[in-house]
Amino acid sequence: MNIKDYIQNLGRQARGASRILAQSNTKARNRALEIAASIIESDEKILVNANQKDLVAGQAKGLDRALLDRLELTKARIATMAEGLRQIVSLPDPIGVIDDLSYQPSGIQVGKMRVPIGVIGMIYESRPNVTADAAGLCIKSGNAVILRGGSEAIHSNQAIAYCIHQGLEQAGLPQVAVQIVETTDRAAVSELITQEKYIDVIIPRGGKGLIERISHESKLPVIKHLDGVCHVYIDDRADVNKAVAVAVNAKCQRYGVCNAMETLLVARGIAPEILPILGKHYQADGVELRGCLETQNLLLGVKSAIEEDWYTEYLAPILAIRIVSGLDEAIAHITHYGSHHTDTIVTEDLTRAKRFLIEVDSSSVMVNASTRFADGFEYGLGAEIGISTDKLHARGPVGLEGLTSQKWIVLGDGHIRQ
Amino acid sequence: MNIKDYIQNLGRQARGASRILAQSNTKARNRALEIAASIIESDEKILVNANQKDLVAGQAKGLDRALLDRLELTKARIATMAEGLRQIVSLPDPIGVIDDLSYQPSGIQVGKMRVPIGVIGMIYESRPNVTADAAGLCIKSGNAVILRGGSEAIHSNQAIAYCIHQGLEQAGLPQVAVQIVETTDRAAVSELITQEKYIDVIIPRGGKGLIERISHESKLPVIKHLDGVCHVYIDDRADVNKAVAVAVNAKCQRYGVCNAMETLLVARGIAPEILPILGKHYQADGVELRGCLETQNLLLGVKSAIEEDWYTEYLAPILAIRIVSGLDEAIAHITHYGSHHTDTIVTEDLTRAKRFLIEVDSSSVMVNASTRFADGFEYGLGAEIGISTDKLHARGPVGLEGLTSQKWIVLGDGHIRQ
Repeated sequence: MNIKDYIQNLGRQARGASRILAQSNTKARNRALEIAASIIESDEKILVNANQKDLVAGQAKGLDRALLDRLELTKARIATMAEGLRQIVSLPDPIGVIDDLSYQPSGIQVGKMRVPIGVIGMIYESRPNVTADAAGLCIKSGNAVILRGGSEAIHSNQAIAYCIHQGLEQAGLPQVAVQIVETTDRAAVSELITQEKYIDVIIPRGGKGLIERISHESKLPVIKHLDGVCHVYIDDRADVNKAVAVAVNAKCQRYGVCNAMETLLVARGIAPEILPILGKHYQADGVELRGCLETQNLLLGVKSAIEEDWYTEYLAPILAIRIVSGLDEAIAHITHYGSHHTDTIVTEDLTRAKRFLIEVDSSSVMVNASTRFADGFEYGLGAEIGISTDKLHARGPVGLEGLTSQKWIVLGDGHIRQ
Repeated sequence: MNIKDYIQNLGRQARGASRILAQSNTKARNRALEIAASIIESDEKILVNANQKDLVAGQAKGLDRALLDRLELTKARIATMAEGLRQIVSLPDPIGVIDDLSYQPSGIQVGKMRVPIGVIGMIYESRPNVTADAAGLCIKSGNAVILRGGSEAIHSNQAIAYCIHQGLEQAGLPQVAVQIVETTDRAAVSELITQEKYIDVIIPRGGKGLIERISHESKLPVIKHLDGVCHVYIDDRADVNKAVAVAVNAKCQRYGVCNAMETLLVARGIAPEILPILGKHYQADGVELRGCLETQNLLLGVKSAIEEDWYTEYLAPILAIRIVSGLDEAIAHITHYGSHHTDTIVTEDLTRAKRFLIEVDSSSVMVNASTRFADGFEYGLGAEIGISTDKLHARGPVGLEGLTSQKWIVLGDGHIRQ
């Protein structure tokens, strides 16, 4: 069978499974996840062995240490995977919820029923735990999913899928609700993103290059985020302690994540007071600083930032710093250079906080809180399948609700339109 | 200036205007619409004269009568247009509404703020009233819009835009929030649908050919519906009076609309009783019937339906009728042949009604009500900019809410992530 037929066949099976899942009850879907979690724990050895194959192959291929680390399924990570599925079980079922059912002047009742989207295509890179998370969220929300993980994680992903298939089967649900693309041929991705008939939406996760290619070539809607050029703006009416806490946490709590701060904007009025304090913290954490001329004048050891720095998502211990005249210039900077991901203002001024919330056009806009909070768990979604910087359908962390749609329901009693 | 530069310039201006609109208050946006409505009424003569130019040109071009009729701006239609804008004024402002603001375990408050999408690109055909409706909905929801109406309505559309520009200006809002594509060159459409930087979503309205071309070529998200192959299924536990009322209204209340019934499915158990009654009604209304063999046996003068009939949106006094064994077969037929627009069951059986609501995957699913209710006004949205049969972002009639997005807002007090 060629790749085209193979992917089409996965799509056809997923479409069929999605109809069954859409009609399944909460109990069956939860049961599938609970059983899968138990099997992941009891078959831990199978997972570790499969993962070992991937690790050996990865070393032979010369993958770097960071990649091998992300690929590894330790016992702790396997336990976390099972725990993640159980957390999804504990979330309320979004499917079938009817909102706003109300009578209209004609006498009909009109409301909206939450329903699954249908078939999700996930394309992602090395970390195998995404396989369990994505499958769990899709099953819970009544969707079928086709998972295309990184080729370097293929054995691990197959082993995880095996556990999930047991769960689905024992709960009386079709195994093909969750399918792994078993070929590592890159053509499979090109096929997936053109299956208009069988796949409803593509969710890519991974490097910018992958996501750009997918969203450019896809014939299907794509839920994605490209960049996380996140800003913290310290207003001159900021509380210094809060500002330091937020600006240090946003940069240093973790570097390689999309919700880490990449550019710090500081109001001119507070810069002489706060920059030296922040400078010490960043220095202690080994963060390289690149700043505008004014920043360099206030702080020793700051390299000169060039235009490109303001656009850059470092994902590393590097920070760009710019001094601005105030709120207007901060918002203008964020609008021009930002990536609409997550931006924070630190201020005690109510009117400025309100303006920042309204005028900054990002998926998450914050007041006096670290950008690192932009996350499905922290937002109470329970889990996230990705983050969207698009404006349509889903925005910001995408949890169960982002995997659903709503249909209109109309209840009458023989009502006709006049 | 060439078309590419021209459209890009419209886009750039729209993007700028969208930022101002997003930050404008309810009062200013409502004021713009109220003034525009008054000017439409007081400048009725200007509108009629502009429209006259289009009608004369249309006749010279040999447009058919139906098209000329849709193009015409009568005094009554102009009054309705102004009334439509005032109705939009009376709708609640969706922008800035904050939902679900609640404390998370970390201590941050997380909620969602409703915001405009940004810049809408509308592409539509002859009816000039769409210009006023679309501009009104976009202004109210804080979006800028670029309107590309039919070339045959260009003078009418310019005159309507003139009225709206007066409203915007007098309310202190940028006139370029609403822009008409002034060229009738078809290349303008191709340019519009590739302005990824300046336009956020394309809403095409018109014939299937236009919409297919646009959604195929667009680099932007498209909110659209292609077909309205709507079904009424009369269950054998239907109330005969309700069934007749619904099945006649769904077909005969208006023919050329997307929410008219195109296929009638009748349970075998009730067909001998109900088909003769329905047959008389349809005959009286001059509806051509095309049926399966069983239908032909029960009813005189029914043509033989071929496979293609089940897929067809007639938009005409033609109806396909099929007798099915019951609910399962009805749902299977709708799933296979339908277009996910609007489908109705007529039944007194609660369990079957519930199954139909859950299992039929259409943008509107109804019980004991005419498919003709699938409409923004009837659903209480106040107005609609279009209907979507897609599942992502907006589904069914698209009103103000469909023109908005939500961003996450996070309020802390110096909170950092642990």
